[in-house]
Amino acid sequence: MCCSTVLLNLILATGWMRQVMGGFPMVTPTVGDIWPRPQFADISNAKHLVIHPDTFMFVVVGYTCDIVEEATKRYMNILSKSTSSQREAGEALEGGSGIHGVLGHLNVNLLAECEDFPYQGMDEYYELKVATPDAPGEASLTAYSVWGIVRGLETFSQLVQSDSSSLKIMSAEIMDFPRFSYRGLMLDTSRHFLPRAKIQETLDLMAMNKFNVFHWHIVDDQSFPYVSTAFPDLSLLGAYTPRHVYTVDDVADVIEYARLRGIRVVPEFDTPGHTRSWGPGQPCLLTECYKGSDPDGTFGPIDPSHSANYDFLDAFFWEVTSRFPDLYIHLGADEVSFDCWKSNPHISDFMEQLGISGDYKKLEEYYITKLFDIIQNYPTNNRYLVWQDVFDKGVSLPNSTVVQVWQDGDYPEDFMAEIDAVTSEGFFTILSSCWYLNLDTFGSDWFDYYSCEPHDFEGSEAQKQLVLGGEACVWTEYEDRTNLIPRTWPRAALVAEKLWSAASDTVSTEGVPSRLDEHRCRLLARGYDVEPLLPSYCSADIALGE
Amino acid sequence: MCCSTVLLNLILATGWMRQVMGGFPMVTPTVGDIWPRPQFADISNAKHLVIHPDTFMFVVVGYTCDIVEEATKRYMNILSKSTSSQREAGEALEGGSGIHGVLGHLNVNLLAECEDFPYQGMDEYYELKVATPDAPGEASLTAYSVWGIVRGLETFSQLVQSDSSSLKIMSAEIMDFPRFSYRGLMLDTSRHFLPRAKIQETLDLMAMNKFNVFHWHIVDDQSFPYVSTAFPDLSLLGAYTPRHVYTVDDVADVIEYARLRGIRVVPEFDTPGHTRSWGPGQPCLLTECYKGSDPDGTFGPIDPSHSANYDFLDAFFWEVTSRFPDLYIHLGADEVSFDCWKSNPHISDFMEQLGISGDYKKLEEYYITKLFDIIQNYPTNNRYLVWQDVFDKGVSLPNSTVVQVWQDGDYPEDFMAEIDAVTSEGFFTILSSCWYLNLDTFGSDWFDYYSCEPHDFEGSEAQKQLVLGGEACVWTEYEDRTNLIPRTWPRAALVAEKLWSAASDTVSTEGVPSRLDEHRCRLLARGYDVEPLLPSYCSADIALGE
Repeated sequence: MCCSTVLLNLILATGWMRQVMGGFPMVTPTVGDIWPRPQFADISNAKHLVIHPDTFMFVVVGYTCDIVEEATKRYMNILSKSTSSQREAGEALEGGSGIHGVLGHLNVNLLAECEDFPYQGMDEYYELKVATPDAPGEASLTAYSVWGIVRGLETFSQLVQSDSSSLKIMSAEIMDFPRFSYRGLMLDTSRHFLPRAKIQETLDLMAMNKFNVFHWHIVDDQSFPYVSTAFPDLSLLGAYTPRHVYTVDDVADVIEYARLRGIRVVPEFDTPGHTRSWGPGQPCLLTECYKGSDPDGTFGPIDPSHSANYDFLDAFFWEVTSRFPDLYIHLGADEVSFDCWKSNPHISDFMEQLGISGDYKKLEEYYITKLFDIIQNYPTNNRYLVWQDVFDKGVSLPNSTVVQVWQDGDYPEDFMAEIDAVTSEGFFTILSSCWYLNLDTFGSDWFDYYSCEPHDFEGSEAQKQLVLGGEACVWTEYEDRTNLIPRTWPRAALVAEKLWSAASDTVSTEGVPSRLDEHRCRLLARGYDVEPLLPSYCSADIALGE
Repeated sequence: MCCSTVLLNLILATGWMRQVMGGFPMVTPTVGDIWPRPQFADISNAKHLVIHPDTFMFVVVGYTCDIVEEATKRYMNILSKSTSSQREAGEALEGGSGIHGVLGHLNVNLLAECEDFPYQGMDEYYELKVATPDAPGEASLTAYSVWGIVRGLETFSQLVQSDSSSLKIMSAEIMDFPRFSYRGLMLDTSRHFLPRAKIQETLDLMAMNKFNVFHWHIVDDQSFPYVSTAFPDLSLLGAYTPRHVYTVDDVADVIEYARLRGIRVVPEFDTPGHTRSWGPGQPCLLTECYKGSDPDGTFGPIDPSHSANYDFLDAFFWEVTSRFPDLYIHLGADEVSFDCWKSNPHISDFMEQLGISGDYKKLEEYYITKLFDIIQNYPTNNRYLVWQDVFDKGVSLPNSTVVQVWQDGDYPEDFMAEIDAVTSEGFFTILSSCWYLNLDTFGSDWFDYYSCEPHDFEGSEAQKQLVLGGEACVWTEYEDRTNLIPRTWPRAALVAEKLWSAASDTVSTEGVPSRLDEHRCRLLARGYDVEPLLPSYCSADIALGE
C-alpha cells in the first residue's frame, strides 16, 4: 500500500497542508502581540477596524508640543510603509468576518503640558482604547505626560496588522506603565567608533522597546572620540583619527534624537582608570609608571597627587554637565589598578603626606571623594552613577549615588548578594550583570536574559524600591557599525520586557519565542537588521533592508 | 615637578605623538600584506610606482575570454573606488622617496585557452611581477590557466595602497599557488533563507580570499527553497513561502557569478535524513512514523522500502546534476535517525524480505548504495561528497567518494583520528570540524581556526595527498541576511589562508592580528560588512556601507 491515500486524508482532515506551506520553522509567531507586554491589556483578535494609511490621522485633542508632533509623524510613517509584521501579506488577515468598520483617526489626548526632557522617575503611564464597547468605531490614547503619549503610540503601532491592500487594527483596551523607572542600554564608543547613524538606529529600536536611558560610555582607554570645547586636544590626540569623533553637533543631535523618543542620555566619563586615551591631550593627567627609579614611558590611572588635575576635572565635567541635560552623569570608577600608583615615587610621597602610606584604596577614595565633591557642587546636573567597584571597596558614597551592578558570577547568588548589599546600605542600584549583550554565545542564551530578575533577593520592601531597574550593556571590543544592530537586537528586547512588564508576566519563557519572533519580524519590516534567534522566517527577510 | 616636561621630551624623542594620534587600538595593521599569504613573495615597501586610476589599464596580452574580461573589469572597479585600506588616507604613503615612476598598465598574460568551468584540481598558479629589477617600470601577471589569472588579479589589487589623490603599488615578485585544491565555504539556505544578493556578496568575499568551492546546502528539514522544474511541488509546499525560493534563474545566476570568480558550486541535497521539508511536495517519500499500530502523523527519513522513491530520486538528481555543472554533488547522508524506521511495520516487513531484520545500519546502507548507483550511472557529474557518518557506520563506499569530516571533538586527536581512518581506507577527505563558523564564541576563537591543521596526523604521504583541503561551514539556525556577512567574515578568511598558504607560513599566529586587521579594513573599504576581531579602527568604519 502506498502511503499517499493516508497522507492525503491526513491533509484534508487536519488542514495540515496549510501549515506545511510555511515549511517547518521552529516557531510560529504570534499575531498582534505587544512587546514589551503591557501591564493590563484586553486585546481581541475577533474584532478589527480597517485603517487606510492614506487618510488615517493622529488627531491631537489635548496638549501638544514638538515631542508629540514628531512622534505622530514617526508613527504615521511606520503605518504608511508597514507592509507586514506577519509571515506573508494576507495570511494573518484572512477572512473579513471580524471587520467592524473603519478607524479614521486616533485621538491623542495629552492631559498636561509637555515636559522638555525625560528624567529619572518620569511618568510613562498611558491608556489606549481601540473599538471598545463604549466607543466601537473609535480609538484614543490618553496620558498625563508626554512620555506616556510616546510609549502609547508605539503600542498603538504594534496593534496594527497589515493586509495586502490595507491595515487592520485589533480592538484593545490597555492601561500600561513601566515596572522599573530605569531601563537602560549602554553603548561603548571607544573600543570601536560607532557612527552617529548607528547610535540613532539604536535609539529608534530602544524607543520601539520602551527603553528610556541611553548610557553613552563615550570614551575609554582605547580612544577619546568626544570633542571637548574646553579641551580640544583630548580628542585631537586621543581619538583614533580626526574623523572618528563626536562633534558638538553630533552630541547635541544624539541628545535631541533621544529626547524626542523619551530617552535620557547619560554620558559616562570613566575615571580614574580606563583613561589611557585622555593622556596625550592632557599632559600630567595620568600617573607615570616607573620601572625602578625612572618612568618607563607607560601611564596608569589619573594621577591623584597633582592638584592641578582636579582643576582640569572641574572644568571638564562642568562642560560635560552643561552639554548633557540629564540630572545624572556616570562617573565610572571601575577596575582601578594600583600597580602604576605603587611604582611611582611621587605618589608614595604624596600618600605619606596624607598619612595613608601603602593604603591604595584610601588613595582611590581620596580621588573619588574629591571628584564627587566637584560634581556635587554644581548647581544642577550633579547626580551620578558609578560602577559597583567603589562600593565594593568601601569608598564612602553619598546616598543619592546609583550603583551599577555589573560583576559576573553565578545567578542569582552572586548578583543578588551584591544588590542586597548595595540596597541594604541605602543606595539606589541598577542591574547589568546578566545583560552584557556582547558576551553573546548564540543559541538560546537569550533565555537567560529573560530569566534574570532584579528583585530576586531577600530584602525589605524599602530595599526593593531602591532597585531602579537595569541596563543592557554593549562593550565593543568586537562590535562596530558592521554588526552592532544584529548583535544587540533582538536580544536587548528581552531586557526591555523584563524591565517594563509586570513581574508575574516575565517569570516564564513559555510563549516568548513566538512573541519574540513576531516582534523581530516587526522590527525587521521597519528596516532594522535585527537578527533571528530561531530557525524561522519573515516576509521582510528577503529584501535587503530599506 | 610637573611631568609635562618629561612627557614632551618623550614625545619629541620617540615620535610617540604620531603614534598616539591614532588612539590606543589593540593592534597596528600591516601595510600591503597579501591575504592569504602567497607561497613565494618578495615585496618591497621601499620602491613604489604610482597608479592613476583614470588612465591605468589591464592590458590582455595572452589568451582571453569572458572570465578574464569580467575579472579585469571587477578589479578596475575596485582600484577606481579604492580610497584606502589604511588607517587614514595619506598616512601610509607619507614621503615620496620610494616613488619610481608611474605604472600605466598591468600585462595580463594568460598562456593557454580559457577553461569554461572551475573544477576539482584546476590549476590556480600565477606569477606576478611589479617593478622588478629587469623591468623596473612595468608589471605583469602570467598564468597557465584562467583561474591563475583570477587569483593573481586579487593579489595585484592587494598590493595597491591609496593616497589621498592617487594610488601606489609596491614592487613585488610573486609566485603563488594553493596548498590545497579544495578550499570551500558552505552556506545553509534552509534554516534561514538567504537572499541571492547575500550569496553573491559571499562569493565576492570568497574570491577575495581565494576560496574555490561554494558548497550550497540548499535544502534541509526546515525548508525547501530549491525550485525543481521536474518536481515543482517540492518548493511550492516545502519552502517557507512562495517568495523564499531559488528559481531556475537564481540558481543559474549563482553558478555563473561563481564561475566568473573561479568558484565551483557544489549543491547538497542531503538524504535520507534532514528531509522533512521534502515530504509535503512528494507524497510517499518520507517514512511514516508509527505510534503503536497507527501512523502518528509525523515523518522520518526517506522511506527506503518504496521502490518508487528511487525512481523519484533518479529523476530529481538527474535534474540537479544537469543544472549544476560541477562533476561533484554533495549527497549529505548525515545524522540518519533510526527511530521512525523502527516504528514502522512496513519497514520491518521490508527488512525481513531483505534478510536484514533489526539491522538498521544495513537498511541505511541499502538506501545509500542504491542512491550511489543512481548517481554513478549518470554519464557525467557523477561524483559525490558525503558527510563522515556513512563512513563511520561502515557503509561500503566507492573509492572516488570524498568524505567530509565534521564531527566535533577534541583537536587534534578526534578530528585527526578520523582523517587518518578515512584516508587509510583510501578515501579523499576534506576537513570541517574546526571550522563551523556559526559556533562563534567571539573574542579570540578565530585563533583556533588558524591553528587547525589538516595534515596534523601520523600517516603516509599517500594518505596526506588524499586530504583535498577543507571547508568552513555556516549553519543558519541563527543567521540570515541581517548578520550573515559579519558573522562569517573575516573569520572565514583565516580558513582561507590556512588552506591556501604554505604550511610553514600558517603554523604560528604571530603577526596574524596585524595582517588580519589590514585585510578586514580592505574588505570593509570595498563595501562589505566585515566585522572587527579586535579593538581597532579603519577609515571605512565611519561610512555606513556603499
